[in-house]
Formats: sequence, structure tokens, C-alpha cells
Amino acid sequence: MPDDLRSPGPHPGLLDALRQILGPHGLLTEASDLEPYLADWRALYRGEAMAVLRPASTEEVSACVKLCAERGITIIPQGGNTSMVGGATPEAKPNQVILSLARMNRVLDVDTADMTMTVEAGLVLARAQQVAAEHGALFPLSLGAEGTAMIGGLLSTNAGGNTTVRYGNARELMLGLEVVLPDGGVIHGLRRLRKDNTGYALRHLFVGAEGTLGIITAAVLRLFPAAKETATALCAVPSEDAALALFRRFRAADEGAVRAFEYMSGIGMGLVLNHIEGTSLPIGQDAQHFVLVDLSASREGAGLRGLLESVLEAAMEAGEVEDAALAESEAQRAALWKLREEHPEAQKRAGASVKSDVSVPVSAVPEMIRRSSAALRELIPGSRPVPFGHMGDGNIHMNLEQPEGMAAEDFLARAHDIMDCVNAIVRELGGSFSAEHGVGRLKTDMMEEWRGGAELSAMRAIKAALDPRGIMNPGKVLP
Amino acid sequence: MPDDLRSPGPHPGLLDALRQILGPHGLLTEASDLEPYLADWRALYRGEAMAVLRPASTEEVSACVKLCAERGITIIPQGGNTSMVGGATPEAKPNQVILSLARMNRVLDVDTADMTMTVEAGLVLARAQQVAAEHGALFPLSLGAEGTAMIGGLLSTNAGGNTTVRYGNARELMLGLEVVLPDGGVIHGLRRLRKDNTGYALRHLFVGAEGTLGIITAAVLRLFPAAKETATALCAVPSEDAALALFRRFRAADEGAVRAFEYMSGIGMGLVLNHIEGTSLPIGQDAQHFVLVDLSASREGAGLRGLLESVLEAAMEAGEVEDAALAESEAQRAALWKLREEHPEAQKRAGASVKSDVSVPVSAVPEMIRRSSAALRELIPGSRPVPFGHMGDGNIHMNLEQPEGMAAEDFLARAHDIMDCVNAIVRELGGSFSAEHGVGRLKTDMMEEWRGGAELSAMRAIKAALDPRGIMNPGKVLP
Repeated sequence: MPDDLRSPGPHPGLLDALRQILGPHGLLTEASDLEPYLADWRALYRGEAMAVLRPASTEEVSACVKLCAERGITIIPQGGNTSMVGGATPEAKPNQVILSLARMNRVLDVDTADMTMTVEAGLVLARAQQVAAEHGALFPLSLGAEGTAMIGGLLSTNAGGNTTVRYGNARELMLGLEVVLPDGGVIHGLRRLRKDNTGYALRHLFVGAEGTLGIITAAVLRLFPAAKETATALCAVPSEDAALALFRRFRAADEGAVRAFEYMSGIGMGLVLNHIEGTSLPIGQDAQHFVLVDLSASREGAGLRGLLESVLEAAMEAGEVEDAALAESEAQRAALWKLREEHPEAQKRAGASVKSDVSVPVSAVPEMIRRSSAALRELIPGSRPVPFGHMGDGNIHMNLEQPEGMAAEDFLARAHDIMDCVNAIVRELGGSFSAEHGVGRLKTDMMEEWRGGAELSAMRAIKAALDPRGIMNPGKVLP
Repeated sequence: MPDDLRSPGPHPGLLDALRQILGPHGLLTEASDLEPYLADWRALYRGEAMAVLRPASTEEVSACVKLCAERGITIIPQGGNTSMVGGATPEAKPNQVILSLARMNRVLDVDTADMTMTVEAGLVLARAQQVAAEHGALFPLSLGAEGTAMIGGLLSTNAGGNTTVRYGNARELMLGLEVVLPDGGVIHGLRRLRKDNTGYALRHLFVGAEGTLGIITAAVLRLFPAAKETATALCAVPSEDAALALFRRFRAADEGAVRAFEYMSGIGMGLVLNHIEGTSLPIGQDAQHFVLVDLSASREGAGLRGLLESVLEAAMEAGEVEDAALAESEAQRAALWKLREEHPEAQKRAGASVKSDVSVPVSAVPEMIRRSSAALRELIPGSRPVPFGHMGDGNIHMNLEQPEGMAAEDFLARAHDIMDCVNAIVRELGGSFSAEHGVGRLKTDMMEEWRGGAELSAMRAIKAALDPRGIMNPGKVLP
């Protein structure tokens, strides 16, 4: 790292002042200590920082932000650093600090009468799930990075995941927020209220703002009764349309029971079976389309196994399902989920891939998959479309695996063409270029085309109003 | 009305220009035509206006707003004008127009695959419910004013109502918005997406902004499967704590089945029985506390009647329920609901009353009711506390009926003392002074105390950013 980037020279006394606020363990300045914070895990970006600030309290966050604001030092808030779009990575510029929430990882309160849990932003999601379970409740947010991702980042990106079809995004799981603003002011909004119409819904503005409007330091989360019953099946279906028809069947039978409804392609399933140890397919070796349906209920005697069987039977009679395997144990259920969860890892092992995270109205998912797959195959002959994801939300990761034998570099050079190809179809279908991953750095240049005009102007006006000096996570979200 | 308020004098040609945009039926300027728009239905406020604009399209709204913005004319957006807090009433100032959304009442699309309905802002809620039902679906928002209140206003105030415990507020029922900004720019956000993380969640900012940041002109609403089964009971319970314990019992038995859980006091029930024709109480004539529990399910064979009976039986054994009447028909169900719905009308007929709309964490509802009732009785001897409402959301209308024989005027002169008395207790319990009615004009002076500091500063910064000239519904929300 060049000295002029890290040197405290232009800001005499800054690091000393920060150390005074944060104590000896709260400030990292050695190059080797900074290293893990400078790049995103996908290795798409790498930046620089004068220091990593590790505050232990909201007061420390506020004091640090105030100090940085006064001196024009930009701040990169960072949680578990698992962004798919470089949302928490610094830029390659001087006068930046990373503010890690990792030390603020306390559970402040769990209340099973209110069904709320109040936690600090640095709490890891898996731990939040565990604490809820220890209280006989469920915190339903669940996604691949849950062992690393932190509540503050999950809220800042309005994370989705596998249970969104039933419980909503991170936004819907949040009742109140504590936020440190770009001037160091603190919004004390840790209210445990189901209803509160007292002025603008600031909490909803910070959720999904990716740290560009302020730093979420704590949140009141919603809890739900734990599941008393589950039922899970992997189904081979003849087409994308059949997958959607099956989803509608389950929704009509019992809207509240569908916890997850995940689509996978035959190609993707093949990659998982080839590259991931310990996986095997209990059904339809030659199927082109798969669906994982997961039911759960918190009531006794819900009869989900019977529901699952009767819906699948009717679907088979209607030709919508070719074959199905029902989990007979928790181990079998985990094995079925593994086939879905290992899609990203299998793609990685199979070679280079270009990811996407698009959404369309649920009714348009089959057309989107069909048209995108055909267009991608035409764009790069031999390439392998690997659509998978949250069909019940209209959110499919329309990924593309490189052709066998092609140099990864040559394939990745086409990344923008590939994304443009999918996005053009998604746009026609009234969709979004980012369903759950956010904009980060990776997708800022799409904002003008997709959200330009009055919408982007309003976003810029809000950014300028709350962060007039532009010190909060610059280069993210807004182009 | 004084001539100087309505005279187009200072704005030569303005009315002609508006008439050109709106056509002959779209602009009202006669005093008698303006009359119904100038006061709120509670008769708390009355203002003035140069004209009422009745646009028939988003383009017309945009053109009118642009014209008014150029000339500094303030705009009062108005839907069904059923605000409880004067949220859609003009001020007694010159240079104002009312913009009524009433002519924009079309249903643009209903899609039962996506489970969405796209409607214009002027659609009356009851009509939206009816259209959904005609498509075999449910639009669950339901409240007293549903025959008059319009979708745009309901979203602008983030309305609550009777089904919030299950389906959430208006906010949670909205997927996308079309909004005309204070400069006439249009946000085309009618996206039918369950997931869309592309920049700041502007739609959530306009929901609950009470028309102060722009005018909602259309919305994509969520639909749900229609109920296939319901079960309803009125219960006499020995205490506020027992009411909460009963709620927890139902939630533990089947969280998804509770569509409404309403608390009523013995005093309020007495007022209804005395003042509303055709009401009678099937149970517990002397009970001090009542609960109306309404279950529903969209699945066949849900067995809600059995669930209701078994939960009530267990609650009776535990001493939490003294008596209960189960609806045996739709007519009986309506009769039970009438006892709840007529609370406001009964209070009106019984004399003067001071209303409130507070919320606390669900766990604190019993304490809030108890302490508030005692404090109010001490404040005004002989006064009759009439707490009722949405216990499952922590939202109770902690109303107070005047003492018998007291002059209404003398009682109403204490309105601020009464509100302060309740609010002091609510504040201690971590609650809100407005759960579902919003701030409007009535409660702006509470914002500083309750939401002051960084929170209010951020709201003001956003208002200034989006409406720098302050022309959009001035005097509402922000003090």
C-alpha cells in the first residue's frame, strides 16, 4: 500500500484521537491487520484504508463518525463482508477508514411476549437464529452466508434468502432501528412496536441503503413461533411452467405453509452431483427441472405430510410432476437442501461463471428462464445456463457457467454482455436487475438506465440531504 | 370566505391554465362546490382553497403540480377525507388548492398468478376489497371508514385496522407505487415484484408521509387467498392480563389463524348496548373486559371451530376466560363485530369524548390500559375510560368519555390534559402517540418531544430535499 494513502500526514492527530475513543483494541492500523477488510470475498474489488475502526458501542460509533465528518474522512461500514456486489469494500482512494461492527455483537433483549429480539448490528445471523431457538422461537431469515453475515449488513442490504416467500425480506423482519447518521447524530429508534405512524418511516430508508445514509448499530427484530412440523420434497418437473403451476397448487392448498419453493435446472443439478462430495439424486436422473418445496407449520397436528402427498398426487395426475422424493428424516431433509445450497460452490468448481440476481413478477418466471437460457446459449455457444433460486418470490439467479474447454478469462471478458443479455429480457418482463443482493459497487452503472429520471433524482436528493459531504460508503448504490 | 383568499388576482391566468389541463369537469371553483372539501369529517379543522383540482390521470396530476410549483401555490392532496387527525384539510391561508384523487378510481390490473392488484389512488377501499373478492382473492385491509377511504390516502397514512395482527399495515400490503413529486416529476414504480433491492426504498418513504413528500397516484397491492373457513368468538375475560394471556394462547396454537384480536372494556360495551339499536350481548352482562377473536384460514379442513373451542376451554380452565359466545352463522359473526365496530358511534352519542391512538409493546398493553384508566379517572372524576382496539398489535384507542352531566365544552377544554395524561404513560412504556392514524395537523406539536433530535432533523432534511418550496400539504406531520 502506498504510503500516501495510509499516512496520517494530512490528518495530524486523527489516529490518536480515534484511539482515544476506541481504546487500544478498537483501532487497527498495521497493514497485516487491515488486510482481511480491504477486499470483498468474491475478489471483485480491493481498496485501501487508513485504519479499521472497531467500536464497541453506539457512543463510540457516533464519536468516530463525528470526528471523521469534521475532517472529511470517508467511512466504509462493514459487517461480515459477504456482499455479492462489493457493497462493503473501500475504494482505492486516500482518506478512508473502515468501520467494522464486529465487536458490537450483543443480544440486548429477547421478549417472547412481544416476539421481539433486540440485537446489535455485529451479531452474526446464525447466532441470532440460535438465540431465538434457545427461547423456543424462530428468527426466519436464512441464507448461504448466515455463518458470517451480520444483522447490520443484512438489514442494510435488505437481504432475502430461502424463506422470503413466507416471512418477507429482512425489511419485514425489522420493527425498529438505531442508526448513527453521517454527522454523528444518533436516531434512537429501537421501538418494539407493531404500529407506529409518527412521521417518515426512516427505518425503511436505512434498510436497503447499503450504509450510504448512515450506520445501523442495533435493531429490533421480529420473532415467530418455532416450527412444530415440517415436510420437504424434491420434485422433478417437466417444465418451468409446471414448476410455477406446482407453486400455485401449494399456495392454494395452504398459503401459510410454504416456507420455501426453490427452482433448480437439470444442468445445475448435474454440476452439484459432479462436483460436490456426498450428494446423490433420489429421483429423475434425466430431469431438466427440479423443485424443492419445504413446508412448515407452528401448529400441532398440521398434517403437512398429508398435505404434501395430496398436492403432489394431484400435480402428478395433472402432469406437472414427474417424480418426487419426500424427506423421511431430518438427515434426508438436509440432504435435499444440500443439493440446492451447493449450487454456488458447484458452479465455482466447474469453472468460471457469471452471476445474476434478477426478479420478475412470479407469473413471468417461466418465460424469463426460457428466454434467458436460449439467449445466453446463442450469445456464447456451449455455455451452460444455471438458473436456480426463489421461484416463489420471482427471484431467480440466472447464472451462466462457462463452456467446457473455454478459457475462464475469455469467458469472463463477456461478463457484461452476459448480464446485459439477461437484463434486457428481465426489463421487458417488468423485473429488477437486483432482487436481493443490492447495488453495491458492481451494479451502480445500471441505476441510470433502470431507475433514472425522477426516481434517481429523488434518491440523490435524499443522499445529499442526509450526507451532504458524501462521506458515508461512497461509490455504492448511486452512480 | 374572504375574497383575498380565493381571488386568482395574485396568480393571473392560473385557474385558466388549470382548466386547460383538467377540462371543465376537473376544476371546481364555486364556493358551494368547494365546501365539502374544506373541513375534515371530525370538524376539527376548516381551511380555504382557491380551487379543487380533480385530475383524471397521472399526467394531469403532474401537469397541475408543475404549474402550482412554478407559482408557489400549495397543494393539499385529498382522498376520501376520512383522516382522524386533519391530515387532508387545507389551512386557512391563501394560495392553496386541494387536489382530489377521487376521479382516479380505476382498477388497472388484477393478477391472481402474481396475487397483485394495480389500482389508482382514488379507488375506495370497499371497492378494492370487492374487486379482489370477485377474483376469488382477499385484499385484507379493513377498517371503519372503508366505504369512503381511498387507497392513496390509506397508503399515505399507512393505515392499520382490524386485520393488521395478521396481514400488517397498509405498508406491508404494497409492492409498488406511482408518485408525483413536488416538482411534477413522476416516479414510475408500479413494479409487481416481491423482491427489488435497487436503491433507496422510496415507496416506503411515501407510505406514511401523509402527502407531504408527493402524491401517490397508483399502487400495486398484494392479494391473498380468500378465507375458506372462519371462526369467531366474543369472550368475557376477568382482566387485561387475561386478555393478553388469551392472545398468547391463540398465537401459540396457530399463529397464522388469528385474523383479529380486539379488546373492549365493560364501559365501552355498555355505551354500545345503550346507544346503538339492534345490539345485544350474548354473554357476561357484568364483565369488565371483553375480547373479540376472529380466526380465518384459506385452507380446506382447517378445523378452526375445533381450535377455537379447545383454546377457549383451556383458557377457561386457567381462569383466563369467564364466558364466551361462538358465532354459529355469518349473521351472528356480524352481530359480534357490530359490538366492536359501533364503539366510536356509541361514544359520539353518549356525549363528548377525547380520542387517542396509542401503541405500546404487546406485552405492555395491560399495564397501559390499567394505569391510563386510573390516571384519567383521577384527572377528571366521573369520566369514563373507553379503551378498545387492536390488542394483538399493541394498539389501543385509549379514549375517554365525558362524565355524565358535565358540559361537553368544559370536558373538551381538558382535551390536551387528557392526551398528555395518556401519553406520559405510553412514553414510559416505550410506546407511540400515533399507532395508525398518523400525525396530520392534530399531533404535529408532539413530534418535537417524541421524535426530536436526530430523528426529526433527518425528517426535515428529507422534506427540504424533496419539497424545497414546501408546497406539498404544508402544516402536516412536521412541526
